[in-house]
Amino acid sequence: MNLYERFLAQDARALARAITLVEAGYPEGQALLRRLRGRGRARVVGLTGSPGAGKSSLTDRLIEEARRRNERVAVLAVDPSSPFTGGAILGDRIRMMRHHQDPMVFIRSLASRGALGGLAGATVATLALLEAFGFDRIFVETVGVGQSEVDIARVADTTVLVLTPAAGDAVQAFKAGVMEIADVFVVNKFDLPGGERIVQELRTTLELAAPRPGGWKPPVLTAVAPKGEGIPELFEAIEAHHQHLLEHNLLEADRLERARFEVESVIQEWGRRKTREGQALIVRVARGELSPEEAAMELMGLPRGVEAK
Amino acid sequence: MNLYERFLAQDARALARAITLVEAGYPEGQALLRRLRGRGRARVVGLTGSPGAGKSSLTDRLIEEARRRNERVAVLAVDPSSPFTGGAILGDRIRMMRHHQDPMVFIRSLASRGALGGLAGATVATLALLEAFGFDRIFVETVGVGQSEVDIARVADTTVLVLTPAAGDAVQAFKAGVMEIADVFVVNKFDLPGGERIVQELRTTLELAAPRPGGWKPPVLTAVAPKGEGIPELFEAIEAHHQHLLEHNLLEADRLERARFEVESVIQEWGRRKTREGQALIVRVARGELSPEEAAMELMGLPRGVEAK
Repeated sequence: MNLYERFLAQDARALARAITLVEAGYPEGQALLRRLRGRGRARVVGLTGSPGAGKSSLTDRLIEEARRRNERVAVLAVDPSSPFTGGAILGDRIRMMRHHQDPMVFIRSLASRGALGGLAGATVATLALLEAFGFDRIFVETVGVGQSEVDIARVADTTVLVLTPAAGDAVQAFKAGVMEIADVFVVNKFDLPGGERIVQELRTTLELAAPRPGGWKPPVLTAVAPKGEGIPELFEAIEAHHQHLLEHNLLEADRLERARFEVESVIQEWGRRKTREGQALIVRVARGELSPEEAAMELMGLPRGVEAK
Repeated sequence: MNLYERFLAQDARALARAITLVEAGYPEGQALLRRLRGRGRARVVGLTGSPGAGKSSLTDRLIEEARRRNERVAVLAVDPSSPFTGGAILGDRIRMMRHHQDPMVFIRSLASRGALGGLAGATVATLALLEAFGFDRIFVETVGVGQSEVDIARVADTTVLVLTPAAGDAVQAFKAGVMEIADVFVVNKFDLPGGERIVQELRTTLELAAPRPGGWKPPVLTAVAPKGEGIPELFEAIEAHHQHLLEHNLLEADRLERARFEVESVIQEWGRRKTREGQALIVRVARGELSPEEAAMELMGLPRGVEAK
């Protein structure tokens, strides 16, 4: 059987192999993805938050809850961190999860940037593979740094922002502009001092925030992941948001946004590659002989004048 | 006199107007930039760090130090925060600076995304204008969220990472991958508990880090900005790094990287605009009828096959 057939026959190793091919940007991966895209339909839940907020243990508990409801679950840990950490922090933690032996749970981390659309593109492509494989629910976990928080909100149906009572966490959330991209807020490590205060701060701020599509009111929940406290409530809040999306016909808009994000990622990655390759043009831009727009047009093979705003 | 002539005649209002035109993406701005690009040469210092690290008061003190050395100084506050805050947090703080009345100091904040290369593109374009106007030194301050930290390192000659003894600040730095992009580290608010500990942690980690171009060893300094403590030392460290760049012929590489960044930003912004406009193609991607690569090619007006990896 070829990879496509093994994939359809529910061979988990075929899925893992397919993801590797897509992540590395190999043509076989693209071809496979082409045939599989659009199959299946999972509830995609993004989890983001500062390093140390306890996202992984929270995800671990959410897997448990999903399994209790008999769902097939995939976890995709996206680690945008630098070569300095090797992008392995999240992956390592994820691998330690106790659900790794459960055949109904698939756990995978993504850190490389080989794919045509970079790490962002690889994430969306992998989601398409996971959906096609038939998972009911996909948790996408990302370290809340860089562009990743905004990105995850664009690919997930429901985005959960994980905070802690630690000083600065709320400030970080308010300033980083993640307030308006999260659908559900959870203050993890709620047993630490300051928990009630941050919950109140979040609620006050959310009351003043711009209205959400369909009038969704993002709930602020609390949890203590290692003790399993607050997990069923969090899961219910995620479900309530999904129900809200269905009732207000917002799920399609989410899927369109994901597709738009994927196309953007491809163009962005082309831009990165082309500018790396087009050194001579870049030198001319640095010297002021050529405008960045002219260089961009030439690099992308566009005729002059086409891109004039 | 037209805008170009007034600009050359050192009219600060002409500079402000030019930046507004460039920021908004107007053709007049592009045309002006075209004529001015490549003039002047400033030392560009990026300052980044978590919200609340005290970047603005540190910048305020650095301006003072630069003025003491008789430099003409510009400050560019780049605020990538969301519509939720209106991008005004940084701008407001900057405007409160006491140097606003000094004619040898120009302070400006950027938050809009009208320019062809988005906020990132507007930042580099504004830098070109400030250099052409004849500033000796330009401080670029950004809230350390989103992609902004990595971006600032790509446009600045010297990047300063501002940390505090607050819990989590070091962890944040290590995980966010900003460790390797900063040339100088400063622990601000050093009079708070935990200052020595974070300095030691940073030094230990930096010893294990990959070697820098030309063998630069990023120093770890301390400061208490409101009291002016540590400011001359910080300024000297910035100067030492600049000297290092000169001695090792690294300044040109920095300028090339800036040009590359600007071209990339233009392509990225095209991608954003094209995907917003090409709704019909996005729908087909969401349905699985078209691959993101095919849609991207069509949106960018590229013939099929050209972009095959």
